[in-house]
Amino acid sequence: MKSLGIGLIGTGFMGKAHALAFGAAKAVMGDVPEVHLAVLCDTPADKAKQMADQFGFTRATDDWNSLISDPDVDIISITTPNILHFDMAIAAINAGKHVYCEKPLALTLDQARDMRDAARAAGVKTMVGYNYIKNPAFTHACRLVQAGEIGDIVHFRGWVDEDYQADPELAWTWRAKLSDAGLGALGDMGCHLASMAYGIAGPIESLIADMQTVHITRPLADGSGHAKVENEDTASALVRFANGVHGSLSTSRSAWGRKNRLAWEVHGTKGMICFDQERMNELQIYRNTGNAAQQGFTTILTGPGHPPYGEFCPAPGHQLGFNDLKIIEATALLRAIRDNTAPCPNFDDAYEFEKTIHAIAQSARTGTRVSLSDL
Amino acid sequence: MKSLGIGLIGTGFMGKAHALAFGAAKAVMGDVPEVHLAVLCDTPADKAKQMADQFGFTRATDDWNSLISDPDVDIISITTPNILHFDMAIAAINAGKHVYCEKPLALTLDQARDMRDAARAAGVKTMVGYNYIKNPAFTHACRLVQAGEIGDIVHFRGWVDEDYQADPELAWTWRAKLSDAGLGALGDMGCHLASMAYGIAGPIESLIADMQTVHITRPLADGSGHAKVENEDTASALVRFANGVHGSLSTSRSAWGRKNRLAWEVHGTKGMICFDQERMNELQIYRNTGNAAQQGFTTILTGPGHPPYGEFCPAPGHQLGFNDLKIIEATALLRAIRDNTAPCPNFDDAYEFEKTIHAIAQSARTGTRVSLSDL
Amino acid sequence: MKSLGIGLIGTGFMGKAHALAFGAAKAVMGDVPEVHLAVLCDTPADKAKQMADQFGFTRATDDWNSLISDPDVDIISITTPNILHFDMAIAAINAGKHVYCEKPLALTLDQARDMRDAARAAGVKTMVGYNYIKNPAFTHACRLVQAGEIGDIVHFRGWVDEDYQADPELAWTWRAKLSDAGLGALGDMGCHLASMAYGIAGPIESLIADMQTVHITRPLADGSGHAKVENEDTASALVRFANGVHGSLSTSRSAWGRKNRLAWEVHGTKGMICFDQERMNELQIYRNTGNAAQQGFTTILTGPGHPPYGEFCPAPGHQLGFNDLKIIEATALLRAIRDNTAPCPNFDDAYEFEKTIHAIAQSARTGTRVSLSDL
Amino acid sequence: MKSLGIGLIGTGFMGKAHALAFGAAKAVMGDVPEVHLAVLCDTPADKAKQMADQFGFTRATDDWNSLISDPDVDIISITTPNILHFDMAIAAINAGKHVYCEKPLALTLDQARDMRDAARAAGVKTMVGYNYIKNPAFTHACRLVQAGEIGDIVHFRGWVDEDYQADPELAWTWRAKLSDAGLGALGDMGCHLASMAYGIAGPIESLIADMQTVHITRPLADGSGHAKVENEDTASALVRFANGVHGSLSTSRSAWGRKNRLAWEVHGTKGMICFDQERMNELQIYRNTGNAAQQGFTTILTGPGHPPYGEFCPAPGHQLGFNDLKIIEATALLRAIRDNTAPCPNFDDAYEFEKTIHAIAQSARTGTRVSLSDL
Repeated sequence: MKSLGIGLIGTGFMGKAHALAFGAAKAVMGDVPEVHLAVLCDTPADKAKQMADQFGFTRATDDWNSLISDPDVDIISITTPNILHFDMAIAAINAGKHVYCEKPLALTLDQARDMRDAARAAGVKTMVGYNYIKNPAFTHACRLVQAGEIGDIVHFRGWVDEDYQADPELAWTWRAKLSDAGLGALGDMGCHLASMAYGIAGPIESLIADMQTVHITRPLADGSGHAKVENEDTASALVRFANGVHGSLSTSRSAWGRKNRLAWEVHGTKGMICFDQERMNELQIYRNTGNAAQQGFTTILTGPGHPPYGEFCPAPGHQLGFNDLKIIEATALLRAIRDNTAPCPNFDDAYEFEKTIHAIAQSARTGTRVSLSDL
Repeated sequence: MKSLGIGLIGTGFMGKAHALAFGAAKAVMGDVPEVHLAVLCDTPADKAKQMADQFGFTRATDDWNSLISDPDVDIISITTPNILHFDMAIAAINAGKHVYCEKPLALTLDQARDMRDAARAAGVKTMVGYNYIKNPAFTHACRLVQAGEIGDIVHFRGWVDEDYQADPELAWTWRAKLSDAGLGALGDMGCHLASMAYGIAGPIESLIADMQTVHITRPLADGSGHAKVENEDTASALVRFANGVHGSLSTSRSAWGRKNRLAWEVHGTKGMICFDQERMNELQIYRNTGNAAQQGFTTILTGPGHPPYGEFCPAPGHQLGFNDLKIIEATALLRAIRDNTAPCPNFDDAYEFEKTIHAIAQSARTGTRVSLSDL
Repeated sequence: MKSLGIGLIGTGFMGKAHALAFGAAKAVMGDVPEVHLAVLCDTPADKAKQMADQFGFTRATDDWNSLISDPDVDIISITTPNILHFDMAIAAINAGKHVYCEKPLALTLDQARDMRDAARAAGVKTMVGYNYIKNPAFTHACRLVQAGEIGDIVHFRGWVDEDYQADPELAWTWRAKLSDAGLGALGDMGCHLASMAYGIAGPIESLIADMQTVHITRPLADGSGHAKVENEDTASALVRFANGVHGSLSTSRSAWGRKNRLAWEVHGTKGMICFDQERMNELQIYRNTGNAAQQGFTTILTGPGHPPYGEFCPAPGHQLGFNDLKIIEATALLRAIRDNTAPCPNFDDAYEFEKTIHAIAQSARTGTRVSLSDL
Repeated sequence: MKSLGIGLIGTGFMGKAHALAFGAAKAVMGDVPEVHLAVLCDTPADKAKQMADQFGFTRATDDWNSLISDPDVDIISITTPNILHFDMAIAAINAGKHVYCEKPLALTLDQARDMRDAARAAGVKTMVGYNYIKNPAFTHACRLVQAGEIGDIVHFRGWVDEDYQADPELAWTWRAKLSDAGLGALGDMGCHLASMAYGIAGPIESLIADMQTVHITRPLADGSGHAKVENEDTASALVRFANGVHGSLSTSRSAWGRKNRLAWEVHGTKGMICFDQERMNELQIYRNTGNAAQQGFTTILTGPGHPPYGEFCPAPGHQLGFNDLKIIEATALLRAIRDNTAPCPNFDDAYEFEKTIHAIAQSARTGTRVSLSDL
């Protein structure tokens, strides 16, 4: 197989993570198709050039259309602000390129559906940057649930909180504007929680929700006054999964002290499993087996028994980090391209995850239960 | 002041806790009116007699009416199954006795209101066994919140879970019968969470809720088949407090591994406080002050700085236990009787707490938002 | 059996704990001989009188000799400063009374041996206030070890730290004076660790140690200058148990943040158990059984499966407190008196525990290995 | 500056870690000299070839001497078994190459000294793979200590435990043979603890130690019987630092449940800091400042405030992993080469760290205090 050319749009948090992931995937995993870092796009052009040098890309551009049409580019990584995902992804799909897009897919569910449909029609491979569901601790939890280790699932609760908008004095930015950012906490973080809920408990059938803009205005950076915050700081939902299980999801971007608390607990007829991304190498499991006097929550530290941890390190407890999750994700895409299989999570999966956050927003606005099938 | 005579009805978990609390209150606290353990009631009479000997009561009876009318009895402790609270409390109030009743007040909110009104009219002192809000860690948290240590409150989340009904094979009991037990998880545990939410964030204005009977039937103990579980195993609500703060409350009696997880977190504009009764001597606080590189959640271990911990032990970190909370509660009642002040939580307070659980049940049944003022 | 009369000397931290324990033992445990709080001694007489009223003692005195000789007193509780233990205990033994003495037995090992020998000769029952070894979590750990749940023991490590002498500006007190206080951290806390090490891994054969006075002088309270601290702030030892197991023990009274960190870990051929008194209702156990991918430390929350927890509370996870341990201890003494058996830990046991702390001090002074059989 | 050619010997756990680190350093850090992966050496040649393809090395060899003499190689990474470090490092130094060697430097302290002296004489840059001291949480702790945030240091305790030799039935390997492996737990792990103790509390002046081979024989893999384990499973030492501080160090390779428990606590006159590598993104700090009722251990989650965390990820709490530490380490070497400064930890530093483990072994053998200046 010829080496796959990577075209990366964006050089921020996620741009760097993609560059590192593609750069390391084969060295870590071995059985991964060859890639080369072909073109990097950012603006202004100088920045693109500088970061291309740093990341190891052959060429730099400030024109994402030229990147997409570049014949040396096979995979388009989209790590730009959410509002740009749609146009870039559609263009990439139309150019017959594989697409690796950051979450959420788009500002609206309609756009997300169009992206999904376009990718399906074009037959290109897609991957969406849901990172955390690639954590060996999470996939181990999914296996435990599927193997019945905690019996039948009876309840699910999840939270995803950060504090990047907790300070009332923080200046207003485009993040607060509906037409630029779309959803607030739900779009930034809630969709991650939705992806994990889906992995553990399956699709959600309906939900009823509430949301709130905690800090209703923010000071303008130029000191000229305050502007309105148009999207939600917090959102919560009572959900019913298709399998009959009830649960709840909640998110806040104004939760002081939480840095990446993407956490959940799943209750089963025979036990419980809990997880918190702030201790991403740990999994808590309680099992109702044996002598009650010996029962308790067991803290499993990830290790080679939780693939693909062992590809990074043969010794247990030595810890994976956030960027390692991206290597696992990039590997999944590269192998799917090679093997002509469906990578996961692709645009179809992401569309299902993101239904949940749009349903939450809709229910919170209307005050009534929303069936996800009606979206 | 003459020694106050205690009449205790019930000798189970809470009966013993009351007996121990009245027995130890003065020795622990010093400044507490004298009490004597006058009459103990349980059935059959033999059991009452045996437990009176164990607990140190002067007399025993199997007739709670005679206990209430006993002239040596000034305070009636009601620790019987919930269905009996109403009749006993009303009788005690009518006899002009002070009443120390376990939670929840009654099976229905109407009964609870009647109890409250009767106590108000009679001018007797009342106390309700909400235990956990007497924890020095909790009252410290309330003080921190009131002092603005975490700024203005912006969000509240709480959970109360146990696993006493988690095993699907557990036999059916009266706990599953609406007319005997009233609410399920909400009545057993949810009201505790409501009391803590109230203490931290004040009264709830409205909520929308969902609930579920996870194990819809249970085997009959005699092997003759299965019977229906009529009340809820889990319940969750999205709440709006009167002060505009949003939040959520959730409870499950089918949560394997949780033994007394009465936990909550309150988000403020300057910090966060978290608590979990399973580590009842600890409080977590995050404050957005000083250098961000030094910030984190601080685990405060209770000590003499958190009154009345120091009455139990002058050394910090030596730990209070569950029964100690009951000593604090009994002390509050005894002092209020002596000082002719309103003890807290009395029937008025409890009625406010318990509105929440009945509102949750009503909203879950109707699927619509319930205003607590409409109850 | 006639009611046993309690004579309590001392009304401080431990005095109150003894009073509460005797007051509650029968109510909690049921099967416990009747006691009555006969005489309380403290100085001045007014304080004794006031505390007798608070604790519920019939009489008060400022003369401990009269308390000991009081014919209504059967059990002498000694909770005075360590320097007084010897005279009081010997007098009580000579009067044929049972003795419940706080740890450590005495300032020197010679005195401790004399106390032990006198008690043996007199045939009275003795109990020493080692509290923590009565914790259901600890006795459960001992049972797990004895049942081979972690295989054969191969290593033991323990620590006991507090911060009551961590502040360099804290005023000098009698605690710093060898002739008044005897050992420093070793006497206050180290003996507790020794008692736990003994319970888990058996007697120590020899050790080599080091110790240090961290704050070599302290300011005099009257501002007149500084005085020397004569005993150790920290001490550590490398120990060899009689069964061939190696380990280490360490203590500090200058450990900021530690409030009662009496903690240990025992390594076995099949697992490990860890404990920390600051979370006294928890026990950590790791077992090398089954699939390595599911292994981890299990946090056991104490409950009715860990006797006598269930006597305090039928619900698991509801937490015992420090004063509850004293109830368990007092119960053991009272039952041993009734049954004419040897209570544990009695003066014989305490003597064995305390050999360790004196051996540590001796080795630290000489710099050479000390065999405990040479003491 | 011309691109630096990397010659890597070894393709195991550490070989892969070096390859990944050199591959990612510039992309992560930006300001790092260009490198190219020139030659990879392992045996047999096929394996070298396969891994060179996976890791991205241009050439492969099974002859490490040819790698060292290759003119395209500027830096020699030595990740082979410890017994080979000495010969390879000396050869590399003699060839005028920079050396990046895994710890410990050599089997004996004499060899380590020779390596240090040779590197000094040759003027090449050296780096030793102590990984954990590059953790932003650790360097933050060092800064806090140096800034006096916990006052003057008064005590230090450290442990490093794993369970890779905990199973008594594990087969005998070369690791158990003194002439092949040198020290046991001390060499594998103890030197890491020594490096951290040094960073926090400075050089050790003297110590007294004990050690033990817990499993004195192990079964031969071919079932033909048992062979002797010649080196230690556990070792412990009571240390005195040059600054007068006392402390203790302990290690075990037979500690079930510990996967990488490289943990320590440093006590100061104003606070305490604690760390555990199994939660490598967390640091615990207690400070005796302000209201005692608000004090407790604060858990700091690493973030951009703890450089160079921000190079990996701009969002706090997102977690670094083990392999990220190697990127920080490789960066330090590459920058030191570019800037002609001394990298840290170089052979001089490592020699100081490793004195400690050899002193522990010597003291344990002789039973007497060892001054490190006498080694």
